[in-house]
Amino acid sequence: MGDVLARLRFVGDLSDGNWTRMAPAARLLRTHVLGRPYVIPERDFLPGQEFDIRFEIHAPKNGSEAYNNGVPDEKFTATIAKDGHKEQSIAEFFKQSEPALEKWTFSWFEDLFAQDAKTPSVVNVASKAYRRVALYEPGDYTVTLNYYNGKKTTAKWTVRPLATKKKAKNVIFFIGDGMTTNMITAARLLAHKTVNGRYQTLLSLDEFPVLGHQMTHSIDSYITDSANSASALYTGHKSSVNALGVYADSSADPLDDPKVETIVELLVRIWGSAWGAVSTAFMADATPTALTAHSRLRSRYAAVVDQVLNGVSNYTWTNHGGPDAYFGGGAEQFIAGSGSPGGKDFYAEFAKKGYSVSWNKTALQAAPNDKKALGIFCKSNLPVWLDRNIFPDNIKTLKNDPSGADSAALDLPGFKDMTLKAVDILHKRGDKKGFFLMAEAASIDKQMHALDYDRALGDLLEMDDTIRATIEKLKALNILDETLIVVSADHGHGFDVFGSSDTKYAAAQHDDRGKRNAIGVYQNSGLSQYTQPKEGVSYGTGANFPLNWDPRYVIAAGLGANPDHRETFGVGKKPRTPASVGANGEVYVNPTDRPEGFVVNGTLPTNEAQGVHSLTDVPVYARGPCQETFGGTYNNIDVFYKIANCLGLGQPKNVTSGAGGGCVSKPKPNKPRA
Amino acid sequence: MGDVLARLRFVGDLSDGNWTRMAPAARLLRTHVLGRPYVIPERDFLPGQEFDIRFEIHAPKNGSEAYNNGVPDEKFTATIAKDGHKEQSIAEFFKQSEPALEKWTFSWFEDLFAQDAKTPSVVNVASKAYRRVALYEPGDYTVTLNYYNGKKTTAKWTVRPLATKKKAKNVIFFIGDGMTTNMITAARLLAHKTVNGRYQTLLSLDEFPVLGHQMTHSIDSYITDSANSASALYTGHKSSVNALGVYADSSADPLDDPKVETIVELLVRIWGSAWGAVSTAFMADATPTALTAHSRLRSRYAAVVDQVLNGVSNYTWTNHGGPDAYFGGGAEQFIAGSGSPGGKDFYAEFAKKGYSVSWNKTALQAAPNDKKALGIFCKSNLPVWLDRNIFPDNIKTLKNDPSGADSAALDLPGFKDMTLKAVDILHKRGDKKGFFLMAEAASIDKQMHALDYDRALGDLLEMDDTIRATIEKLKALNILDETLIVVSADHGHGFDVFGSSDTKYAAAQHDDRGKRNAIGVYQNSGLSQYTQPKEGVSYGTGANFPLNWDPRYVIAAGLGANPDHRETFGVGKKPRTPASVGANGEVYVNPTDRPEGFVVNGTLPTNEAQGVHSLTDVPVYARGPCQETFGGTYNNIDVFYKIANCLGLGQPKNVTSGAGGGCVSKPKPNKPRA
Repeated sequence: MGDVLARLRFVGDLSDGNWTRMAPAARLLRTHVLGRPYVIPERDFLPGQEFDIRFEIHAPKNGSEAYNNGVPDEKFTATIAKDGHKEQSIAEFFKQSEPALEKWTFSWFEDLFAQDAKTPSVVNVASKAYRRVALYEPGDYTVTLNYYNGKKTTAKWTVRPLATKKKAKNVIFFIGDGMTTNMITAARLLAHKTVNGRYQTLLSLDEFPVLGHQMTHSIDSYITDSANSASALYTGHKSSVNALGVYADSSADPLDDPKVETIVELLVRIWGSAWGAVSTAFMADATPTALTAHSRLRSRYAAVVDQVLNGVSNYTWTNHGGPDAYFGGGAEQFIAGSGSPGGKDFYAEFAKKGYSVSWNKTALQAAPNDKKALGIFCKSNLPVWLDRNIFPDNIKTLKNDPSGADSAALDLPGFKDMTLKAVDILHKRGDKKGFFLMAEAASIDKQMHALDYDRALGDLLEMDDTIRATIEKLKALNILDETLIVVSADHGHGFDVFGSSDTKYAAAQHDDRGKRNAIGVYQNSGLSQYTQPKEGVSYGTGANFPLNWDPRYVIAAGLGANPDHRETFGVGKKPRTPASVGANGEVYVNPTDRPEGFVVNGTLPTNEAQGVHSLTDVPVYARGPCQETFGGTYNNIDVFYKIANCLGLGQPKNVTSGAGGGCVSKPKPNKPRA
Repeated sequence: MGDVLARLRFVGDLSDGNWTRMAPAARLLRTHVLGRPYVIPERDFLPGQEFDIRFEIHAPKNGSEAYNNGVPDEKFTATIAKDGHKEQSIAEFFKQSEPALEKWTFSWFEDLFAQDAKTPSVVNVASKAYRRVALYEPGDYTVTLNYYNGKKTTAKWTVRPLATKKKAKNVIFFIGDGMTTNMITAARLLAHKTVNGRYQTLLSLDEFPVLGHQMTHSIDSYITDSANSASALYTGHKSSVNALGVYADSSADPLDDPKVETIVELLVRIWGSAWGAVSTAFMADATPTALTAHSRLRSRYAAVVDQVLNGVSNYTWTNHGGPDAYFGGGAEQFIAGSGSPGGKDFYAEFAKKGYSVSWNKTALQAAPNDKKALGIFCKSNLPVWLDRNIFPDNIKTLKNDPSGADSAALDLPGFKDMTLKAVDILHKRGDKKGFFLMAEAASIDKQMHALDYDRALGDLLEMDDTIRATIEKLKALNILDETLIVVSADHGHGFDVFGSSDTKYAAAQHDDRGKRNAIGVYQNSGLSQYTQPKEGVSYGTGANFPLNWDPRYVIAAGLGANPDHRETFGVGKKPRTPASVGANGEVYVNPTDRPEGFVVNGTLPTNEAQGVHSLTDVPVYARGPCQETFGGTYNNIDVFYKIANCLGLGQPKNVTSGAGGGCVSKPKPNKPRA
């Protein structure tokens, strides 16, 4: 019975665009005893962190786990007890009235054979949700679910130690989406020169004093996505693939799942600090929205963008007040129409709440630092650094103007422009209350999905250059010493460099095997040619980028997992689509992508057109107050607790309006930042 | 001109067995100005570390760099000056007489076109070598080579700060050969169970307090091998692929290259400490022999094993006294015959010098702790943990008895047995002088080459289990607090896990594309099934290994670089040979390896039958005295300087016989350990 549960797929209305859906059921059914209560058996909380609790009783009607004729126990009860204290009903303990019983049905496939045979298993559910509670006293708690006349499931919840003292005034959290140590190594090779095996210059990351590794797996899968890993980093709670700020439940509504309070919600509630998000992705994407979103489905873009501005509206919940700076792509959720919340002009909604709205770099730089600021610079993701700086023809033909006009967005800020402007605004607006900024280099991930290593590494170098410039900026503002900078990733891709390829020799060969022989491994890899000046080539991109993106000898690299595609290893003058999808959904080599390359048959399911995420732990770099707590190996949720402890967010009583206790920096009451 | 130099291949007598050879010339020619002096332009030294200097003047007779009709300047001169001090000739500065001029010729291919056309470039060389010198004063030095009537090349040499104080009595250096963060993550997944995304137990490595990353590239290539990376770790000097304890020169003799003193040579000379090496490889392999070997070619197995026992014999050089413990495989270099030094019975040579000699686990455990010990337990590499523990039938049919008998070595120690015994011996023999132990889990690398992920990860888990047991042992001996433990790797392989595969579903599909659809990615990866107990399966391998190596849902993993092969992802019941070599040297899918799998066409040159090394920085874990110096990102040579500084090996004057200066632990004079 146990084994098949790893492979469940959900059938229902949860279809999620590009993502192959699997049931929340998979996790539910895997963490239970017979009778299927949905109690998360282990979780940690920050003292005072607000959250919802949902219990579910499952009764499968058919399939290998059919039980009780498909009738779930509606009379279940639940209790909680701090260790050494008496057991109380959930309602009594949290001083709430008993919530109404909810009932629904969902179905799933037990395995791929069941899916091929179209024979889903159907599960009836009885459930109750207790909303917006918190645990204040550190220690261990036992939650017990009683059901089916005497069956019991217990869960251990741990409330971590109090952390009332604010040790860092500001936190800047850089996330290289999908970034691994392997990619950082490759980016260094491309942009920095060695003499006798010694780098003459280094990445900004190389100069961070403290290094750690974090484990990225989710509750339901050892391979995570950016939604649930971002939520783990921002809330201290792991969840399921595609879920943002909630523990995914099995109900049909993706906006009723049990929520957990995020770092920016806590920070605004307790200290009244300013906060912002910058991303090179569309701004409805998972990594920025996980700061404020509470939905099982990251793909509900309009809903999560509404939560960016207005917070949770269907339940009483912490008001994060809206970001002080929010910069990136994704005009689709802001232009009035089918993509925007309620079909509204969402630029106007932000403006109504006092935001400056910028559509280009010129406007961004002119935006006042004392006002909240929205900057949406294009539709979809921001064009990558390589196209903006080396192959600008690729951006001239786009129809991505953020106004909705049928033209190309050309006056584009880079990641550095957006990040530095956000720091200026947050520093001004946060003032003595400090700030939190999340800045995401999103296309490291997006271009690794496309097997476009050069575009991914270009954006990694852009992030590194931005980190360097941010440190300089903080120095100039005289706040470097009071600012914790953390740089990490949310998951990996199985990328590595394994040699070099002689593009001239490869082009002169006439078959796949001949072209592969242009690859040199070990000593025949030679040295990086990207750092050699080339006559007539000058990009003006500064010291920390390659001098030549298109040398004869290029890095030969690959992923452990890929769709069918062709490979040349040289820089793609155009953005890459390695595989194309046939009429039947089957994916094959894209005949127009690198037609001069050799064929690499895929190692992925034949309906995957891109590379996928990987298992690897990802690095964590830290400098500033509390840096010493980031060494060694830990879980992604621990990144949240480390940052939250440094910000003094673990409070012994309910704190609202910036009245946090125990603060050494004497915060002022939390007045809304107009 | 610059570009082609990355792709040089040597033609000459340097053919090196399994390794495709490239010229030392490649590096020489890349680090030069016209006229090709061979001066390493940047290198670091520990104060008092002994080394040789070689100058080479190159004059190519033909090819794109032909110069001076192929006549090298024989009248070149060289000087050295500490910054701010006067320039002196090399001979004068080091108080040596002027060495004799040497002359030779080598040839190489400028690129793959030249190789296909069989048109080598020929280079005439004039050279001098200054032997066994040392720099004692920290600071920067300039070395100047004058040649061709007025041409000059300068090099910057840096002597690092003095480190006379011994802060750690003992050092244990674990090397997971080829081990990356990605593999550590995968090993944790296989052997440790999660509940709700939280590991219930952790790797021993996860509990190390300090984590760093080291860069592994060599002088001649950004992809290194285990010889030159081990030398970087043990000497603080990067070199070229295949070189051990020397800077590779271009002469024909692989035993005359300029040497640098290694950590065990320094440690014996300065403190008279005990030292040992343990490996699961054959004991003539690069990682153990790099502790004592000085040769451009790792493949000169007999010569490097002679240097293990007798040190350098063709030049005056530091006497390391022979290891106090030396345990692993590789009987080929010990059984009298073509593989052993001078054809001698090398077991007898060790015995003559007072060693106990063990051929099996029983003898090893009975060997006296107060006597030097050699343990050679089989021919070739030690059978891997998975075969010794889970599939023992695979070792019963081997003909690998260390005596040379035509039978299987069955009474085999594991990595843990060898390491713990080595600690006992070194602790006893080092006594107050302390010890240095290098312990290598070699088959992480060897099995990754074979794309046999399970065997590689099994050996990684064996190393982790050994580290745990070693810490317990050090506690029991009451020397944990005075012992620095460093765990790292020498290079990576581009491995990662990207999902799971349903082996049952895959087996029921009838073509390659169908079998690929058994792979689940993202949420369909599910959870690890290796930690689920399975009825009737019990290996007795303890808590830190998988409960089931052969579950229905297995990890789906891959390398960015591989030969043509078939893939099933499930555990191989037999060791793996993924590809076979045809009559013409062309490599194809091995028809007998995983015949039920799907074909993965390779991404490597078509003469590569295995996976290859990769670029990625590798992790460094540290605990004990000086642990705080191992955080952040640095070069592999820095690992040497960190350990050497902790051992107080940076000395201001020539120290012999254990008379190191400035020591707080009052070392006794270095009497040879009988």
